Amino acid sequence: MLYNNLTIGENGHLFFAGLDTVALGKKYGTPLYLIDEEKIRENCRLYKSFMDKYFDGKARVLFASKSLSYKNIYEIVSSEGLYIDVVSGGELYTAYKAGFDTSKMYFHGNNKTDADIEDAIEKGIGYFVADNREELDSINRIAGEKKIKQQVLLRITPGIDPHTHKAVVTGSVDSKFGSAIETGQAMEIVKYTLALPNVELKGLHCHVGSQIFDSQPFVDASKIMCAFIKDILEETGYKTEFLNLGGGLGVRYTEADPVLDYDAVFSDIANTVKEAFADGKMEAPVLCFEPGRSIVANAGITLYTVGSFKSITGYKNYVSIDGGMPDNPRYALYQSKYTALIADRAGEEASLCVTVAGRCCESGDLIGEDMMLQRCSRGDTLAVLVTGAYNYSMASNYNRLPRPAIVNVYKGETKVVVKRESYEDLIRNDL
Amino acid sequence: MLYNNLTIGENGHLFFAGLDTVALGKKYGTPLYLIDEEKIRENCRLYKSFMDKYFDGKARVLFASKSLSYKNIYEIVSSEGLYIDVVSGGELYTAYKAGFDTSKMYFHGNNKTDADIEDAIEKGIGYFVADNREELDSINRIAGEKKIKQQVLLRITPGIDPHTHKAVVTGSVDSKFGSAIETGQAMEIVKYTLALPNVELKGLHCHVGSQIFDSQPFVDASKIMCAFIKDILEETGYKTEFLNLGGGLGVRYTEADPVLDYDAVFSDIANTVKEAFADGKMEAPVLCFEPGRSIVANAGITLYTVGSFKSITGYKNYVSIDGGMPDNPRYALYQSKYTALIADRAGEEASLCVTVAGRCCESGDLIGEDMMLQRCSRGDTLAVLVTGAYNYSMASNYNRLPRPAIVNVYKGETKVVVKRESYEDLIRNDL
Repeated sequence: MLYNNLTIGENGHLFFAGLDTVALGKKYGTPLYLIDEEKIRENCRLYKSFMDKYFDGKARVLFASKSLSYKNIYEIVSSEGLYIDVVSGGELYTAYKAGFDTSKMYFHGNNKTDADIEDAIEKGIGYFVADNREELDSINRIAGEKKIKQQVLLRITPGIDPHTHKAVVTGSVDSKFGSAIETGQAMEIVKYTLALPNVELKGLHCHVGSQIFDSQPFVDASKIMCAFIKDILEETGYKTEFLNLGGGLGVRYTEADPVLDYDAVFSDIANTVKEAFADGKMEAPVLCFEPGRSIVANAGITLYTVGSFKSITGYKNYVSIDGGMPDNPRYALYQSKYTALIADRAGEEASLCVTVAGRCCESGDLIGEDMMLQRCSRGDTLAVLVTGAYNYSMASNYNRLPRPAIVNVYKGETKVVVKRESYEDLIRNDL
Repeated sequence: MLYNNLTIGENGHLFFAGLDTVALGKKYGTPLYLIDEEKIRENCRLYKSFMDKYFDGKARVLFASKSLSYKNIYEIVSSEGLYIDVVSGGELYTAYKAGFDTSKMYFHGNNKTDADIEDAIEKGIGYFVADNREELDSINRIAGEKKIKQQVLLRITPGIDPHTHKAVVTGSVDSKFGSAIETGQAMEIVKYTLALPNVELKGLHCHVGSQIFDSQPFVDASKIMCAFIKDILEETGYKTEFLNLGGGLGVRYTEADPVLDYDAVFSDIANTVKEAFADGKMEAPVLCFEPGRSIVANAGITLYTVGSFKSITGYKNYVSIDGGMPDNPRYALYQSKYTALIADRAGEEASLCVTVAGRCCESGDLIGEDMMLQRCSRGDTLAVLVTGAYNYSMASNYNRLPRPAIVNVYKGETKVVVKRESYEDLIRNDL
């Protein structure tokens, strides 16, 4: 199995975090998101251990909460001592309501509204990662009105293309995010920021991309950012305190995905940064990392009930489930690959090649094509693995399907942490 | 302008259904969906007029409500005398709560759960469009328990590929929907259905695809379906009462899209069906059509506020807005093209080539690339046109962005028909 929280019970069923998934599906209904709290905590601690090992414990780990956002998640990562990034007033509100310390929050995104900025400053946000001048002007103005000096980082595009899917490439120069070093616009915005009276520049941020399985793109980005930080020192005298290298560490969704060597990634980054500042002209900045997917993806699975098994003579096999792109749009959006199995007979050989189809009236509503699956029929439980990231957070009500519940599993106990939407919820705002 | 509900006022602003969109954006906030009720009614009447003209008024028009579903919409199409199709218990519930006559509803989809079927039968659903045997068995069993005979149509795949985007091709043989004529499975399921005691077979359904601008795919499908209906007559003696040809008529999103000749489409279909049954062996079935997009798309626009204008030297221009893929995922999903303009100066030449970027922390969150736009800066109102279909209905809370309000415009009056989600709504189900 892909991860150690996935096992097969004596009854042949799929067990998740030690519990029988077929039984959980029956108890809570499907579709159902399951979250393994222990795995999230384990992932948080893994990151922290690398911060200790390679950065003297000074580097910061920020959970990129766009990957999975609801109140309980913030409680978990808070208790593990992580910082977070939020990308909207809604994420900020959710974390705030969960009691997360606002001074440990970074507010991201390419377009923060004045309302967002005002609300975040009022709530005592730690840092904005400012994207552009208009935003900086708003932050500066609102901070002035509130008589504070607001800490900001600047979003910079280092010009790295990690050769992943286009939609998740964000470090290249042609990007909606930030300012490019190559064009000179990054240096301009640094100088612009340093001249603002109510803003305190704390550092720089970049993000190379997603699902990266080797250290090279991070090393490249580190080199470019460190060189830029030294250029800033030379041109302005400003010493960058924080260098946030974003997220993007790859997660295994299928057996075909490589296994990431975390040790190599972090030691390579540490060596690169150390070398860059070996001349002693300034202290190396404190590094920040923003894992989202790699904190929560393998802590989640989704359970569905099979509605039909269809074999089109001479073509394909289709298995229809009671969810689909509304609860997991990643295949529809990016043709992302997943691993699925029939939870009722997870121990049997996966001998059927099938397309797993969602229930939406839309041909593109698929969970995957050419997936190997055990035999199945109406009423069986189908589990899609590694759905902790970007499933619930991207979920819609397309076809007016209520969003599934989220059940947290911890030390053998289950707890509903997000209630299943009701039909009444769907029309709550209809007048 | 693309449609007659889009005009430019004396102040140079974009007007929609006679009202100043800049003023509406300020009044109701952005992002904001606007719906032109008169245009929906006009589109309904257009379809009805073709039913009168080519089918002696007998053919039925079903609004495919997955394209836009909230209570008020069902009230509007009900008052225009349309039938509807629903694809889930949630759509059924919404229509039901709006007072829509359940006997005029068709329940669609490739996977209806037992709960859906039971609920729909209890509410007096007119017809199921049954997809597969498992579903038929459930319908038959539940109808038996409730001592009724349930009317059904069968979903058939005629094997037509209308050469549109893969994700919306549903008529070809390799499909998650229905049973294929070519493989013999369609005839099998017809015979299977005729033998079920609590199910009354009323007809057949097929759907060729989406965004079709010429009559040929419909003519092809009609020919194949009519031939199949005559095969059924020959093999079983059963006379098909209804032939539902689905939806898929193309909508113009940009000036580059063709103008659909409705008259040609419906007269070609009418002639094809008439000819097929000219031998007098049975009466031609009553036709049904299922427009969704072409009823609501051009009745909607979306207003956003510009956050930043960014020109990357030597690369591209980016305009960031305060919404994006959460309220309109169609570019992210299908690279669908839209027309946008700066509502504040809609009368000016659109001389800038820009990428319109959403505010999500995701590179793929774009509304469009290489769009021609008027000059703009933070605070301007940007309008995206023709967003009535598959925008609100596909909306998510990705990045925890609340879904926009929908404001209905009718005879110069505005009315909020769906309230804007609040932050409180986002955490309503969080425990």
